[in-house]
Amino acid sequence: MHIRVILPIIGDSLIDHVRSEVAEWAAPDTKVDAVVLERGTASIESEYDEALAAPGILDQIARAAEDDVDAVFISCFGDPGVHAAREIIDAPVVGGFEPAVLTALSLGEHVGIITVLPNVLPMLRSLARRYAIQDRIGTMRVIDMPVLGLEDRDLLLQRLEEQAVDAITSGEADVIVLGCTGMLGVAAELQERLAAAGMKVPVVDPTGAAVTWLESCVRLGVTPSRTTYLPPPAKDRSA
Amino acid sequence: MHIRVILPIIGDSLIDHVRSEVAEWAAPDTKVDAVVLERGTASIESEYDEALAAPGILDQIARAAEDDVDAVFISCFGDPGVHAAREIIDAPVVGGFEPAVLTALSLGEHVGIITVLPNVLPMLRSLARRYAIQDRIGTMRVIDMPVLGLEDRDLLLQRLEEQAVDAITSGEADVIVLGCTGMLGVAAELQERLAAAGMKVPVVDPTGAAVTWLESCVRLGVTPSRTTYLPPPAKDRSA
Amino acid sequence: MHIRVILPIIGDSLIDHVRSEVAEWAAPDTKVDAVVLERGTASIESEYDEALAAPGILDQIARAAEDDVDAVFISCFGDPGVHAAREIIDAPVVGGFEPAVLTALSLGEHVGIITVLPNVLPMLRSLARRYAIQDRIGTMRVIDMPVLGLEDRDLLLQRLEEQAVDAITSGEADVIVLGCTGMLGVAAELQERLAAAGMKVPVVDPTGAAVTWLESCVRLGVTPSRTTYLPPPAKDRSA
Amino acid sequence: MHIRVILPIIGDSLIDHVRSEVAEWAAPDTKVDAVVLERGTASIESEYDEALAAPGILDQIARAAEDDVDAVFISCFGDPGVHAAREIIDAPVVGGFEPAVLTALSLGEHVGIITVLPNVLPMLRSLARRYAIQDRIGTMRVIDMPVLGLEDRDLLLQRLEEQAVDAITSGEADVIVLGCTGMLGVAAELQERLAAAGMKVPVVDPTGAAVTWLESCVRLGVTPSRTTYLPPPAKDRSA
Amino acid sequence: MHIRVILPIIGDSLIDHVRSEVAEWAAPDTKVDAVVLERGTASIESEYDEALAAPGILDQIARAAEDDVDAVFISCFGDPGVHAAREIIDAPVVGGFEPAVLTALSLGEHVGIITVLPNVLPMLRSLARRYAIQDRIGTMRVIDMPVLGLEDRDLLLQRLEEQAVDAITSGEADVIVLGCTGMLGVAAELQERLAAAGMKVPVVDPTGAAVTWLESCVRLGVTPSRTTYLPPPAKDRSA
Amino acid sequence: MHIRVILPIIGDSLIDHVRSEVAEWAAPDTKVDAVVLERGTASIESEYDEALAAPGILDQIARAAEDDVDAVFISCFGDPGVHAAREIIDAPVVGGFEPAVLTALSLGEHVGIITVLPNVLPMLRSLARRYAIQDRIGTMRVIDMPVLGLEDRDLLLQRLEEQAVDAITSGEADVIVLGCTGMLGVAAELQERLAAAGMKVPVVDPTGAAVTWLESCVRLGVTPSRTTYLPPPAKDRSA
Repeated sequence: MHIRVILPIIGDSLIDHVRSEVAEWAAPDTKVDAVVLERGTASIESEYDEALAAPGILDQIARAAEDDVDAVFISCFGDPGVHAAREIIDAPVVGGFEPAVLTALSLGEHVGIITVLPNVLPMLRSLARRYAIQDRIGTMRVIDMPVLGLEDRDLLLQRLEEQAVDAITSGEADVIVLGCTGMLGVAAELQERLAAAGMKVPVVDPTGAAVTWLESCVRLGVTPSRTTYLPPPAKDRSA
Repeated sequence: MHIRVILPIIGDSLIDHVRSEVAEWAAPDTKVDAVVLERGTASIESEYDEALAAPGILDQIARAAEDDVDAVFISCFGDPGVHAAREIIDAPVVGGFEPAVLTALSLGEHVGIITVLPNVLPMLRSLARRYAIQDRIGTMRVIDMPVLGLEDRDLLLQRLEEQAVDAITSGEADVIVLGCTGMLGVAAELQERLAAAGMKVPVVDPTGAAVTWLESCVRLGVTPSRTTYLPPPAKDRSA
Repeated sequence: MHIRVILPIIGDSLIDHVRSEVAEWAAPDTKVDAVVLERGTASIESEYDEALAAPGILDQIARAAEDDVDAVFISCFGDPGVHAAREIIDAPVVGGFEPAVLTALSLGEHVGIITVLPNVLPMLRSLARRYAIQDRIGTMRVIDMPVLGLEDRDLLLQRLEEQAVDAITSGEADVIVLGCTGMLGVAAELQERLAAAGMKVPVVDPTGAAVTWLESCVRLGVTPSRTTYLPPPAKDRSA
Repeated sequence: MHIRVILPIIGDSLIDHVRSEVAEWAAPDTKVDAVVLERGTASIESEYDEALAAPGILDQIARAAEDDVDAVFISCFGDPGVHAAREIIDAPVVGGFEPAVLTALSLGEHVGIITVLPNVLPMLRSLARRYAIQDRIGTMRVIDMPVLGLEDRDLLLQRLEEQAVDAITSGEADVIVLGCTGMLGVAAELQERLAAAGMKVPVVDPTGAAVTWLESCVRLGVTPSRTTYLPPPAKDRSA
Repeated sequence: MHIRVILPIIGDSLIDHVRSEVAEWAAPDTKVDAVVLERGTASIESEYDEALAAPGILDQIARAAEDDVDAVFISCFGDPGVHAAREIIDAPVVGGFEPAVLTALSLGEHVGIITVLPNVLPMLRSLARRYAIQDRIGTMRVIDMPVLGLEDRDLLLQRLEEQAVDAITSGEADVIVLGCTGMLGVAAELQERLAAAGMKVPVVDPTGAAVTWLESCVRLGVTPSRTTYLPPPAKDRSA
Repeated sequence: MHIRVILPIIGDSLIDHVRSEVAEWAAPDTKVDAVVLERGTASIESEYDEALAAPGILDQIARAAEDDVDAVFISCFGDPGVHAAREIIDAPVVGGFEPAVLTALSLGEHVGIITVLPNVLPMLRSLARRYAIQDRIGTMRVIDMPVLGLEDRDLLLQRLEEQAVDAITSGEADVIVLGCTGMLGVAAELQERLAAAGMKVPVVDPTGAAVTWLESCVRLGVTPSRTTYLPPPAKDRSA
C-alpha cells in the first residue's frame, strides 16, 4: 500500500520529521512518501491560510492521482482541501480532524480537542458542525503556541497537560484529541502523564489516526462516494 | 456608500451584466463597482472550483481593503472565500447564500433552494450545517443547467417554476431562494408565475438580498467580529 | 416607502423618541410613522404582557393594512404578535428579535443577547428554538433594569458594557445584540467602548436592524409566505 | 381535586359536551367545571385566533386562581395562553399539545399528529421546536375539516383513519395523537379500527391526556417553576 | 387497576419500602404488588449492572404478562430493560427516567437531574439522547452516595439540597428530578426546603411520576406501539 | 496483536465462517480467535434478544480480559453489550454499528444502512441518536430476511442491490453500510454491481470495518476512557 502525505505548507524543513512520524504509525508493508506545496503558506492557522493553501494541495492531489497512490493524508488538523480533493481522486483522502475525532467517538462520550491558537477555533467548530458531530465535542481549547513553535517539546507537553487536566476534571472531555498535526510524538507521553495523575483517558494522535484510518479504508476497498463528491465539470481553469 | 462586487471567476464576459444588476438593487446613493479574478475558474460548480477560486478572491479582497470600500459582495451562492475574507478586511463581506437564506427565514417556515447542478448540493448542505440553520431548509433542488448556460432565460424560468411548484405543493418549501447568483433578473417573474398559479410564496433573489444586506450592515455600522475572524498571524505566504 | 412603527404599549410618552430613532435609521426617502396601542400594557416584560398586548397590536396591523403601508415594525424584542400579524397583512412585518439576531449571524459565530430582566429570558430562548437558530446563540444575559427605567443612559451603558465584556472574554459571544428595543441610541457607543477595551466586536441595535431589514424586504419585493401564514378563516370574533 | 376547563372560545354551544367528556376521563373524586371566554373567537385555527383568544383566557386564569382550583386545562391543541397562564397561577396548567405528545413519547418512537386544517400546521411545528421535541414528531397531517365541522363523527373517523393508516404504513408514525381537542370521543374507536386493520398502534386523545396529566401533577404536588415562569412585574395594564 | 412493580435487584430487603411508597402514590383503587429479581445484581449503578439485570427483569415481565397486570413499573432510573419489555407485553411499561423527565418538561424550561454516582451519568445522558430530549436537560449532577447508602435520610436531603440550590442559582435547572428511584420519600421535603430558601421550583419524585404515568396510560387505553416494539421472532433462547 | 471475536449467539454453526471472515480482513500478524455464548439466543433481532444476550457477552468479555487479548469485536450490528463491556476491560471493544458508520462518514455525506428485519430499525435508530450522529444517517432500510436466512447469497445480494439502488437514486444515501454482521462476504460484490449500474458508491462491510478499527485503536495505544466507562463498584451479583 502506498500512502502519500501532503504537508500543506511551503518549505521543507518539517518534511523529514513528518514522513518518519507517519512511517512509524504505518503498517510494515505500507510505503509512505511525503511532499510539500509549491504554493501556499508557511503554516496554517486561519481560514485565510487554508484558502491560500488549497490550490497547492490540489496540485499535489492531481500528482498523487497520476502516481496512482492508494491513499492521501493532508497533514493538517483543519482538513484543508479535503473535500475538493475527494472530487478529483479515486482514493481515500483525509486530513487530521475527521479520523482523529471519529476514532475518539468510540472511546468516550465527549471529545476534548486541544489545538494551537484561538485563531483556528471558529474554523474547527465550523468543521464539527459541517460534519454534524458537534454534540459529541465537549470542549475545544488552545495552548497558545503557534504551529511553528511546537518544537519546544517540554513546553508543548506541559501546556497540553494543563489543558487536558482542566478539561477532564471539569467534566468537559472523556477523550483528548491533539488538535494539530504538528504536535508530533507526544500523544503517548501525554496519555501516560494523565494516567499518572489518575485520569485514565485516551489521547488520540491525529497523524496516527489518519494513517491507520487510510490503511483501513484501503483494506476495506472503499473510495469517496461519487454522489457526494461529483467529478468537477470540465471548464477553463487558470488558478 | 461604496460596494465592491467580486465576481469570483476569470473572464469578464459577465461583468457588465452583474454590475448593472447589482446597481439596480442598490440604493440610489450607493456606488457599485465590479471586478473579476486574475486567477480562478470560468465558473464555480464544485468544491474544487471553490478552492481554486479562493486565492484570486482574496487578492481582490486585499485590493478592496486598500481601496477602502464599505462592503464587499462575493457574487457566488457557495460563499467562496467569505470567511477567509472577513479575517483580512474591516468591512462587511457576504456571498450569495447567507443573506438570501437568512432573509428568507423571516418570510416563511421552510426555505427551498433551487440551484444549478447536483454537484453543488453537498457543498450547499455543508454550508447550511456550518451556519447551523439546516433545520429551516426544507429542500435543495437543481434545474440541471450549468452556470454558463443560464442565459437561456425562458428555459431557466421554466425549470425554476417546475421545481418551485413541486417544492411548494409537496409542502417542502414556503419561501424560494434562487440558489445561484447567475440566475439574474428572474426572481420577480418567478414570483409572479407562482402567484398566478395560486401560490403566494416569496422568491428571494440572492444578488438583491446580498446588496441590501450589505447596505444594512454599513448603515448599522457593523463589521466582522474579531473574536470569530481573527487577523491571520504574519508569516511567509507565497500562494 | 412607508414604514409603520407599532410601539406595542399603551401610553404615548415614548412614541416621539421611538419615531425619531427609527427615522434616523431609515433611508432618506422612507416615510416613518408610529402608533401605540389602544389596549395593552405599559411595557412588555413577560409572556403575560405579550399575550395582553397582542390584540391591540393586531388592531394596529389591520389599520396598517387599510393604510396600505409597505412594512410594519412591531417595536419589541419579544416579537409579540409578529406571526399572527403576518397572517393578516400582505407586507413584511418584523419585531426586534428576528432581524437583529439574523443580521448578527453574518458577523460572528456566537451571538450574545443582552436584555432587561430575567423574566424575559425563557421567552427569548423559546423564540430562538422556535426559529431553530438556538445553536448560534452563545449567551442571553440581563442588565436587571426594567424597560421603563432605561432612560438612565449612563447606567444603561455601564451595565451593558459589564455584561458584554464578560460575555466576550468568557468566549460566549462574538457579536452583541441589544435585547430590548427600548435600549435606544446606545449601540454605537457600546461598540466604541468595547473597541477601546480591545474587543472589536460588533453591536447590533435591534431598531436599526429592523428598519433596514424591512427596507430590504420591500426593495426585494417579498411579503409573508401564504403557505406558512395562511389567511385566517372567517368566523365570529369578539376579542 | 378541582380541575377547571377553559374552553378558549366564545359561545357556549360546546361547553356541555366538553365538560362531560372531561368528566369521563377524570378520576371519580375529581371535580370538573368548565368555562368559555367572554372575549375571543368562535374557534382557534390560526396564530391570529390564538392571539385574540389569549386575553380572554388569562381573564379566566385569574378567576381560576381566585377560585383556588387545583389545575387548569385550556382545551385547545395549540396550547394558547399556556405559558402566560403559568406566570400568574400557582397550579399546573396545560393545553392539549404538551400532555398528549409527551405521553405519546413513552409509547413509540415517532409521533404522528393529525389535526384539522393546514392553517395550524406551522403553529404546531413551532410548538414542537419551542418544546425541543421535534425530532420525535414523525409527521403532522390534516383531515381538512374545520373545528366547527367535527361533529360529523363518521366523516371525522373516516378521515382520521385514512391519515393514520397512511402515516403508519409509510413508517412516519408509531403513535397517533389527535391534534385537536375538538375531536372528542373518537380515539378509542380509531385505535380499534387501526388494530382491526392490523396496526396495533396507540391513539392518544388530547383531552384524556390533559386531564390525567393534570391529576398526576396535582398528586405529585408540583406547580410551575418560578425560575421559568416568573411573576409579571406590576404595571399599568388595560388590555 | 393492577400495577406490578419490578424492583430490578436481587435480595428483598427494600421491597416492602418500595411497595408501600408506590402504594402511597397510587390511586385508592389501584392494586400494587412488587417483586424482585431471581437473577441480577444488588443495585444498578453501571451499564454493566443494567446488562446483568435485564434477563431477570424480562423473566418478571413474562410473569407479569401471564398475570395479566395492567401496567409495569421497573423501579430504576436507568430504565433498564424497558424497551425489551415493551416488545413482550401488551401493557404500559416504564422505568424511572422517562415519566419523571417528561413530566418535568411541562413545569419549567430546563430539567436538572440529581442522581447518585458519576458512574451512571454517561448512561443517563445516553438515555436523554436516545429519547431526543437532551436539549431540555440543563444539568445532570451527583450526590456521590451509592444506592445502598441512601437510607441516611438527613445526609441524602442535605446533599440533594446542595446540588439543587447550586443548579438553580447557576441557572442550569428550573425543575429538579430526583435521579434515582431509591431516593424515596424526600421530594416534598426538598421542594419545601428550596421554597423556604426562596426558590419556588418543583421537585419531581420518579416513583410518583412513574405510578401516575402508568395509571394515566391505563385510563387512556394505550399500550406500546407494535411498529416500534415488534414482537420478537420465535427462536432458540437459553439465556 | 490478538483480537477476540465474540459471536453473541448460542450454537456454534456459524463460528468457523465468522472467524475465517474476520481473519481475512485482519492484518497478517493479527491473531484472531472466536467464541460463542454459553447463554443467549440463536440470533439477535430485537431489544429482547439483545437484553438476553448481554450477560453471556459479558461472561466472554471477562474471559477476554483474563486472556489479555488486545481488542474485542462483538460481532453484531446492534452493538449489544458494548458499553457495559467497556466498563470491565482495558482494551478497545466494538460491535458492528459504530466502526462501520463512523468509517462511512468519511466517504460521503449521507449513510444508508441496509439491515435484515423491521424489528431492529427502532434499535438502530436509537443507537444513532445515542451516538449523536443521526443527522448523517440518510436512510435505514431492510431486506426482510432473518439473520439465520442470510446464507442464500444470491437472494441476499439481490435484495441488497434493490435497496441500495433505491436509496441512492432517491438521494437518501451516498455510502452504503451493511447493517448486519451476518451479511458476510458480499460488500465487494455489491459495490461492483452498483458501480456497474453507474453508481460509484462505497459499500462498507461491518466486519471489515470493525476489525480494522480495532487494529487501529491497538496501534494508537488507546483504550476506553475511564471517565465515560467507570469501573462498576463491587457488589453482590448473581446474574
